Amino acid sequence: MTLTYQAPLRDMRFVMDEWLDAASWWRDVPDWQDLDSPTAQQVLEEAARFVEERIAPLNASADLEGCRFDAGKVTTPAGFRESYAEFVEAGWPTLSLDAGHGGQGLPQLLDVALQEMLAGANHAWLMSPGLTHGATACLQTYGSERVKKALLPKVASGEWLSTMCLTEPQAGSDVGLIRSRATEAPGTDGYFIDGSKIFISGGAHDMTENIVHLVLARGPDAPPGTKGLSLFVVPEWLEDGDGGRSCNGVYCEGIEKKMGLKGSPTCTMRFERAFGWLVGEAHRGLACLFVMMNAARLQVAMQGLGHAHTAWQRAHAYAQERAQMRAVSVPPGANVAPGKAAPIAFHPAMRRILMELRAIVEGERAIGYWTAHWLDIAARHADVAEREQAAQLASLLTPIAKAFFTANGYGAASNALQVFGGYGYIHEYGIEQTLRDSRVSMLYEGTNEIQAIDLLIRKVLPDGAVAFDVLLRQVRAEARLCQESDPPVRAAGAKLAELAQTVESTTRSIKARHAQDPETAYRVADDYLAMLGWMLLAFAWARALRIATPQCEAETFYVEKRETGRFFFDYPLAAFAYRRSLVAAGCEATLPYV
Amino acid sequence: MTLTYQAPLRDMRFVMDEWLDAASWWRDVPDWQDLDSPTAQQVLEEAARFVEERIAPLNASADLEGCRFDAGKVTTPAGFRESYAEFVEAGWPTLSLDAGHGGQGLPQLLDVALQEMLAGANHAWLMSPGLTHGATACLQTYGSERVKKALLPKVASGEWLSTMCLTEPQAGSDVGLIRSRATEAPGTDGYFIDGSKIFISGGAHDMTENIVHLVLARGPDAPPGTKGLSLFVVPEWLEDGDGGRSCNGVYCEGIEKKMGLKGSPTCTMRFERAFGWLVGEAHRGLACLFVMMNAARLQVAMQGLGHAHTAWQRAHAYAQERAQMRAVSVPPGANVAPGKAAPIAFHPAMRRILMELRAIVEGERAIGYWTAHWLDIAARHADVAEREQAAQLASLLTPIAKAFFTANGYGAASNALQVFGGYGYIHEYGIEQTLRDSRVSMLYEGTNEIQAIDLLIRKVLPDGAVAFDVLLRQVRAEARLCQESDPPVRAAGAKLAELAQTVESTTRSIKARHAQDPETAYRVADDYLAMLGWMLLAFAWARALRIATPQCEAETFYVEKRETGRFFFDYPLAAFAYRRSLVAAGCEATLPYV
Repeated sequence: MTLTYQAPLRDMRFVMDEWLDAASWWRDVPDWQDLDSPTAQQVLEEAARFVEERIAPLNASADLEGCRFDAGKVTTPAGFRESYAEFVEAGWPTLSLDAGHGGQGLPQLLDVALQEMLAGANHAWLMSPGLTHGATACLQTYGSERVKKALLPKVASGEWLSTMCLTEPQAGSDVGLIRSRATEAPGTDGYFIDGSKIFISGGAHDMTENIVHLVLARGPDAPPGTKGLSLFVVPEWLEDGDGGRSCNGVYCEGIEKKMGLKGSPTCTMRFERAFGWLVGEAHRGLACLFVMMNAARLQVAMQGLGHAHTAWQRAHAYAQERAQMRAVSVPPGANVAPGKAAPIAFHPAMRRILMELRAIVEGERAIGYWTAHWLDIAARHADVAEREQAAQLASLLTPIAKAFFTANGYGAASNALQVFGGYGYIHEYGIEQTLRDSRVSMLYEGTNEIQAIDLLIRKVLPDGAVAFDVLLRQVRAEARLCQESDPPVRAAGAKLAELAQTVESTTRSIKARHAQDPETAYRVADDYLAMLGWMLLAFAWARALRIATPQCEAETFYVEKRETGRFFFDYPLAAFAYRRSLVAAGCEATLPYV
Repeated sequence: MTLTYQAPLRDMRFVMDEWLDAASWWRDVPDWQDLDSPTAQQVLEEAARFVEERIAPLNASADLEGCRFDAGKVTTPAGFRESYAEFVEAGWPTLSLDAGHGGQGLPQLLDVALQEMLAGANHAWLMSPGLTHGATACLQTYGSERVKKALLPKVASGEWLSTMCLTEPQAGSDVGLIRSRATEAPGTDGYFIDGSKIFISGGAHDMTENIVHLVLARGPDAPPGTKGLSLFVVPEWLEDGDGGRSCNGVYCEGIEKKMGLKGSPTCTMRFERAFGWLVGEAHRGLACLFVMMNAARLQVAMQGLGHAHTAWQRAHAYAQERAQMRAVSVPPGANVAPGKAAPIAFHPAMRRILMELRAIVEGERAIGYWTAHWLDIAARHADVAEREQAAQLASLLTPIAKAFFTANGYGAASNALQVFGGYGYIHEYGIEQTLRDSRVSMLYEGTNEIQAIDLLIRKVLPDGAVAFDVLLRQVRAEARLCQESDPPVRAAGAKLAELAQTVESTTRSIKARHAQDPETAYRVADDYLAMLGWMLLAFAWARALRIATPQCEAETFYVEKRETGRFFFDYPLAAFAYRRSLVAAGCEATLPYV
């Protein structure tokens, strides 16, 4: 097994060109009038080449080597520094950055595909540039002119890497408990920051000559709780204007020994009279971070997808090559001598796992890219109402994608590991690393439980929450199109319509019950999110089935699309009813305290 | 967080004394007439003390340190050698060994409880003594007098550790592909073994002065496939009769880098003209191993339970101590200041996880111990028909426990990790090690997919397979008792009766469909096994609810039993219907080849 990562370019093309029909929409955006499918595919092919050749080969070695911490300095694994420099040199960090800010101004859709590739190839490596977009958006939106001039160009280009410093030992999900303080720095336009932060990915490293920290802290006269938090930007090094630089009070005190992501340094940081500038208004730090965290959450969802894809690819390759036991049945034309061991890919238990991996990966790719597409519409559509609605839809889809994709990414890794049998437990086969690396995405950028609360309690239940209705309309529109199609597609459409109906009535039940028992929504939030996740996959597969009709070209790709789509409705979608039954349970039955 | 392992003695006592009422049965066995609950509990308390004080503290350090391989020699982590010597000295390996063979002759039930403790405290440590019972049973049953004299006493006492050498690179699940060969050793009563084996747990180490390998190989004139396999016993060192010893041709060529179990050396072994004796008849090696593998499979099930218990214990302790966010509701009398962060144990999403962990752990403990109890009946009952039936029931329950408990143990570790948030990903909190260590039990001693095939195709579907009917009778008898009880218990009884009915009719459907399409049972086996697993947990909880009535003493233990039992029927049991729907899908829909 010497399988290295291969980017799923064919399916990416299917999703962009056929499932989303993105190019037809690009034509209406002035900046993207010249952007067509061949151009987009060329970008993705170049990205794939870079990721496959330069990033993927560092994945296993970085896991073995890990990061080194010595006297406040962090050394990243061999090859990270050089490959990151090439990444910046090639302009990948600015792919979707406005041309006005020095970027290439391409759709976020392409950037999200790049994120998927990077996560699937080498999640630890991706951790360093992971916050570049978020930090850029945050400084663009809220930074003072001074900050924009001093920091933004190098942050946006990726020349300097960024971090997000929220968590403190006592303040994880509950950022209101943050204690770090900012005091005015006399005679300057800035502040001194003092405090300790933990779990800071890339808080210190040797990949760039400066690191720009976005730090949540309590400014002067801050009220307690989240309403007293302000955001500050604190560079590791300060430039003195004469081309020299001086050390700021930013210290890395250690790195964590983690389950996975060993190539990415998770740092404990101490800020001691560290000079920084306020970003946005005082006491409005969380709002400023929101723009950063939303971008980050969709990226985390792409990590789940990337891991699921890698898991699928590894398990699929292994199952073709490994022969054990006679098969109960073999596909027509299979070259297996009678009485001889068959590739395990023929055994039903393995086919179940492999088909489910594939169904999840390809379904999620459509939904993940769809979300990115809404972000593009939100950013670029000529009509302000369209922009607003797209933004709300993206904001509804983001927590679902984050929690559902990351849980599935981890589940996919474990299921794929099972295909390897005992070899799966051994490092050199790679899949156990996928499992370990994938686990973190269920925890950071808001645990998956926090995503579920965000979805149900902040975005679905409130009166006037329109995005949920928009989503159901989208799903039902697809169901109708399917029901006007050929018989197998018609069945998928009918099923999809039924799911939308169930989601709507279940939502109504939760709302009614929650009005009487304000714990209800908290009991059912996780299963509710998963229900919506499965409905979205059904939406993805119904549309894919509608597109990949037997009338379209006879390429194996479409035949397999149809088979996978049918399989999805036959098997994995049973999870929707399961989640629904758990939501019903949570509406009925209280929960003991343990 | 400095939580160390605490054995669940209170629940173990509940299961043995009340759920199984084991002592009433022990009175009918001559050897166990003096064995009563206080004596049994005293044994378990001593075991708990040893495990908590000597074994558990080595768990995290062994994971960090790992095993070292140098020039054919393997060094185990600090403390393993000494603590194992104490374990042998204290007689723990011979707890359930016949007094006639130098053991203490106690029920296997107690031994299984010890296995649970060891697995929960330090799975890697347990790997070394893990095969002592199986090897003892195998040599007792099939060893020649010469072998029994030369090897059995030291194997049985644990003075020498044992291994099981099956797997070769090309032969994992498919042992018929084994290539290792045995040739007669001229002028002796033995054979020379040549071949390579992989994934041999404890193939080499520094814990005992000799290691006894049970090796599957092809003897002279062996037919191909599994019917050509014979079993040989090959000691690492041969004794020359004068108290000296000579090196046998047994070489460790390396140890694996694994996802977990880092304290246990997984060895690649080369046998080169290694002298060994035939065990049992030639070409009947698999049959001889069966006795060993059955014992091992129930032990592996206990690993799943042990990990689930540890996961529950760690997450529960953490959730009490960690305060984040205001709670939607708090239990009566809780000491949380208004507006302040509450222990996360109060948050509904965490209560869901914690209650489910508890429901699974305690339900599985009852079922696991029940299986051991049947093994005791099979070994000791006065009536031969009772013995036979008990053996068949144990043999039916074993693959279910192995696959269901290990999948749940791993699932429990991941769910418990989620309770820790970001801290769960950090080594020092211990839970990520539980996750990594627990994963292997789904793979070895027959992957969980192999267990499912064993259950459905070998033990349920064949005509004349009586154990399945016996199991359903047991379940229905409990359902009837519950239905004669108080209202809440009655509801559980009615549900249990319904589950038994569903299992019976589903089994009939599979059988009918399988007769037409011989792939059917292979498609549904995994979900079928899980269905039976959930039915067994419902059986466990129905009986627990029946016992823990409000009339019984007011100890918190019983109040919590009732709450957990009710929770089980309200929430986790929804998985039964889910698995049932997947079995139905597998009966209907074929599977594509990927």
